[in-house]
Amino acid sequence: MSARVGVIGGGQLARMMIPPAIVMGIDIHVLAETADSSARLAATTVGDYLDAETVMSFAKEVDVITFDHEHVPVEILNRLVDSGVAVRPGPQALQSAQDKSVMRSRLAELSLPIPRWALAATESDVEEFIAQGDSPAIIAKTPRGGYDGKGVRVATTGADVSDWLATGPVLLEEKIPFQREVAQLVARRPSGEIVAWPLVETRQRNGVCAEVLAPAPEAQQLSLHAREIAFAIAQGLDVTGVLAVEMFVTTDGGLLVNELAMRPHNSGHIFTELSETSQFEQHLRAVLDLPLGSADLMASAGVMVNIFGGVQAHKISEALSTSASLKVHDYGKAARPGRKAGHVSITGDDHAELLSLAQKAVALCATDGLALDHA
Amino acid sequence: MSARVGVIGGGQLARMMIPPAIVMGIDIHVLAETADSSARLAATTVGDYLDAETVMSFAKEVDVITFDHEHVPVEILNRLVDSGVAVRPGPQALQSAQDKSVMRSRLAELSLPIPRWALAATESDVEEFIAQGDSPAIIAKTPRGGYDGKGVRVATTGADVSDWLATGPVLLEEKIPFQREVAQLVARRPSGEIVAWPLVETRQRNGVCAEVLAPAPEAQQLSLHAREIAFAIAQGLDVTGVLAVEMFVTTDGGLLVNELAMRPHNSGHIFTELSETSQFEQHLRAVLDLPLGSADLMASAGVMVNIFGGVQAHKISEALSTSASLKVHDYGKAARPGRKAGHVSITGDDHAELLSLAQKAVALCATDGLALDHA
Repeated sequence: MSARVGVIGGGQLARMMIPPAIVMGIDIHVLAETADSSARLAATTVGDYLDAETVMSFAKEVDVITFDHEHVPVEILNRLVDSGVAVRPGPQALQSAQDKSVMRSRLAELSLPIPRWALAATESDVEEFIAQGDSPAIIAKTPRGGYDGKGVRVATTGADVSDWLATGPVLLEEKIPFQREVAQLVARRPSGEIVAWPLVETRQRNGVCAEVLAPAPEAQQLSLHAREIAFAIAQGLDVTGVLAVEMFVTTDGGLLVNELAMRPHNSGHIFTELSETSQFEQHLRAVLDLPLGSADLMASAGVMVNIFGGVQAHKISEALSTSASLKVHDYGKAARPGRKAGHVSITGDDHAELLSLAQKAVALCATDGLALDHA
Repeated sequence: MSARVGVIGGGQLARMMIPPAIVMGIDIHVLAETADSSARLAATTVGDYLDAETVMSFAKEVDVITFDHEHVPVEILNRLVDSGVAVRPGPQALQSAQDKSVMRSRLAELSLPIPRWALAATESDVEEFIAQGDSPAIIAKTPRGGYDGKGVRVATTGADVSDWLATGPVLLEEKIPFQREVAQLVARRPSGEIVAWPLVETRQRNGVCAEVLAPAPEAQQLSLHAREIAFAIAQGLDVTGVLAVEMFVTTDGGLLVNELAMRPHNSGHIFTELSETSQFEQHLRAVLDLPLGSADLMASAGVMVNIFGGVQAHKISEALSTSASLKVHDYGKAARPGRKAGHVSITGDDHAELLSLAQKAVALCATDGLALDHA
């Protein structure tokens, strides 16, 4: 009998698990928000992941539960575990991906490099935190529910976050003057085996990942350090499946952990073409406790550029014409401004050349012209 | 709106078109023999491809019709074309894949290298053909319906094929004392663009492809010649989609065309991991008249070994343990002796080492021990 993996959430990450599942003969079941989710080709149950009974009954049909997103309440996850369901990553680990203040305190306990931080309950807490630092501006974050630049704000006074403080504590972090941003992806299986992909450089636009260069250029020393940090997090938090660690490279060349994701992540999409094992295949292998695949690269360089808005199907031909090595990934979503609707990947030798080709292809087929303005 | 591709036949070739279709946002519809076909994850219509009305109504839902197998009667294909359906490859081309005697005469017209052949209607035709050659044994084939060693027989007298002659003409071919067998895969789109993968070496067991080495070892000169032949066939027969040309390498180092397939083919499975573009992605691009992808290799060597019988799901972990570069492909079929149930792929540097690892993995997870006896 085939292994059955249940994925909570029907977004593009669940969608991209389907191809390796087909290859490996794994049955994928998806608990999706809507019948026309991005992952609709998998066996889909439409239901609310906030409803314990819905999740419990979905879990009965599969061997292991994993995730397209981190938003399932920890109480429901604990109930699953208590009733004998394999949940990977487990609730304990997932809390650090769900709540940035939990993440910060756990990383502090593990003595990992992180920005100066505090949890503020009042405006005066905020003022005090600002006063303790060198810069008039800090970063404020809602501990839960933020993504793609949402729930993140630059603040210079307590009043700047008074609306957030009205609903709960706010995470404060020093504003890091970084050189660039990188991401280290690793996968870990329950039996402890852990595999790292090469470090990548991520480039954000409006707080959203727009482009990824792999491997991160000129980063040999950095890579060793980044890998140590990611291994320490994966082991220290007992993560199973794919873990993405987003980091700042500070002006003095150090690393500070910014965000964590405990699932395949936008920064790892390039590995589908560039690595022997994609993050989606690796995630399935990891959550099923199968031997992990090689994360070695099959070309010297790769570039991924996100497509925002929608993918114009009739322009894909033109986009593919830019290079025979270019792939257009279409997530099968209706167009909506700012939406991550797809991405373009290209592998070869030279990052600058690949980036230029990928940007050109995206400009040809994306509906959001603005988000792709590289002028 | 997404492009819609209709695939006639629900076998593993249709199944393996689904992953690249998901990536590219292409809707795949499959006309399958049974609801639990290997390609059941695609939108599946269960119906008989021999029934014109079934095929006509299936074709209404898609932009282009292509194939998992070559068995759709040419009358039905012509009706599709007459009613304006894009059929790729077209009926004219497909006839050469359906009927080996048509194939032989067209290749002869194109002056391509083929074994000495004749179409026999009587036992004395067979005796005469044998008498004209140097060997007491010839190869006899039923012009239609043969595959994987079925419909192929060694004959030394007319009586050896009397049963076949009772139902129609029999194709006779000289028995070629070959060094080895190779396959050249190319893809061609309606607008004429054509792309070739590197030549591969195929190793048969009991008339069935068992192993593939890519690129074919020590075959530099041979490769140029093989590519010329495949290009001539693709252009001469107006093939669209993937074309596989199986050839004998004769004892004097020449090439003779053995069989043709006008769809993705077992000999090209290794390209899923080894090439920038898999044959399944390329086939979809070709039949949709999209720019073709690069067929460049991403590693210096690759080996594919078929899994016969069934894939033992609980042994996949052990099989994957043989190498982090090894992939197990499970076609999701019930086990049956002799059935192609999956395959193992591995990429790296050294064919001998890769072959040994792949054979070991197959021995661990296949149900058919016998077919995999490499002693």
